[in-house]
Amino acid sequence: MQLLEERILRDGKVKDGNVLKVDSFLNHQMDVKLFGEMAKEFYNLFKDENITKILTIEASGIGIACITAQVFDCPVIFAKKSKTKNIAGDVYTARVESFTHGAFYDIIVSKEFLRPGDRVLIIDDFLANGAALTGLSSLVSDAGATLVGAGIAIEKAFQPGGELLRSKGVRVESLARIKSMSSGGIEFC
Amino acid sequence: MQLLEERILRDGKVKDGNVLKVDSFLNHQMDVKLFGEMAKEFYNLFKDENITKILTIEASGIGIACITAQVFDCPVIFAKKSKTKNIAGDVYTARVESFTHGAFYDIIVSKEFLRPGDRVLIIDDFLANGAALTGLSSLVSDAGATLVGAGIAIEKAFQPGGELLRSKGVRVESLARIKSMSSGGIEFC
Repeated sequence: MQLLEERILRDGKVKDGNVLKVDSFLNHQMDVKLFGEMAKEFYNLFKDENITKILTIEASGIGIACITAQVFDCPVIFAKKSKTKNIAGDVYTARVESFTHGAFYDIIVSKEFLRPGDRVLIIDDFLANGAALTGLSSLVSDAGATLVGAGIAIEKAFQPGGELLRSKGVRVESLARIKSMSSGGIEFC
Repeated sequence: MQLLEERILRDGKVKDGNVLKVDSFLNHQMDVKLFGEMAKEFYNLFKDENITKILTIEASGIGIACITAQVFDCPVIFAKKSKTKNIAGDVYTARVESFTHGAFYDIIVSKEFLRPGDRVLIIDDFLANGAALTGLSSLVSDAGATLVGAGIAIEKAFQPGGELLRSKGVRVESLARIKSMSSGGIEFC
């Protein structure tokens, strides 16, 4: 998606440790107009799939997911990263490794909200090693729901997540796929 | 707001410890159509205030904030709950007590995104003891920005947060204000 690639080139900053800082428009400050354009792209890609639920993970996926859900006219569920008092015991869980934080955490979705009849589109801001996406897929699978695919804002295509998920048969659509990046610049696939 | 009150009466569940479970439409599964109606209400309340930024806190405020920001045509910033690798050192911070989790945590906003000229509307899903809202206000104040007010989905008016913030001169507008609640029912102000 040209608009997103241009924005990454303009405002993204490459940091040590393969970090692409896009916090001025994507995952700290959020440009909801850009999200609206991204949502239209996701709709074009998945509009024939009869999506009934959009699934994302807290926190930075939520904004894109909600604005995308408006276009699909369906609810969003966000997987929570730890068990809180406000969620009852009846949940699907998966363990996810966070490369950013160097730790494992559990993600949780209440069983009430993912049903066998659901056709689920996962939306997230980043795909790198695929840990979060793998965890989210397994929640969908545990619920007996159908995973239609994943709509990702930025895929670091030089990391293994995208290839891994596609090789498992998951339809992964990324709006910007980064082939390589360094302090010298960013190259898209 | 009648639509929200009706939804709370229909789908909200009162749990022990003053917990109102609204996770079927507000803070786990999210009804983005309802959020759109709430956004219009916030716009009616604050449309003359020349809002330049909407500020919220991860995770459950983000969805409502993003959909509200579409109506105000401004960016959202979400305060993060802990320092991650992806945020540089130049941040405003405040300490917040979480009554839900029984712990303290720090909230962080990058200095880059809150400026003295900004007119900030805080959006959040709940107001109870006012801890998050107080923390967010202090970030706005530290930035030298103007806090226009706070738009809250559900205020537990029997807890002290709303009164506390209003007594400090903060304009707090809550779309549903709960006077009392028990397993027997919910009463609005």
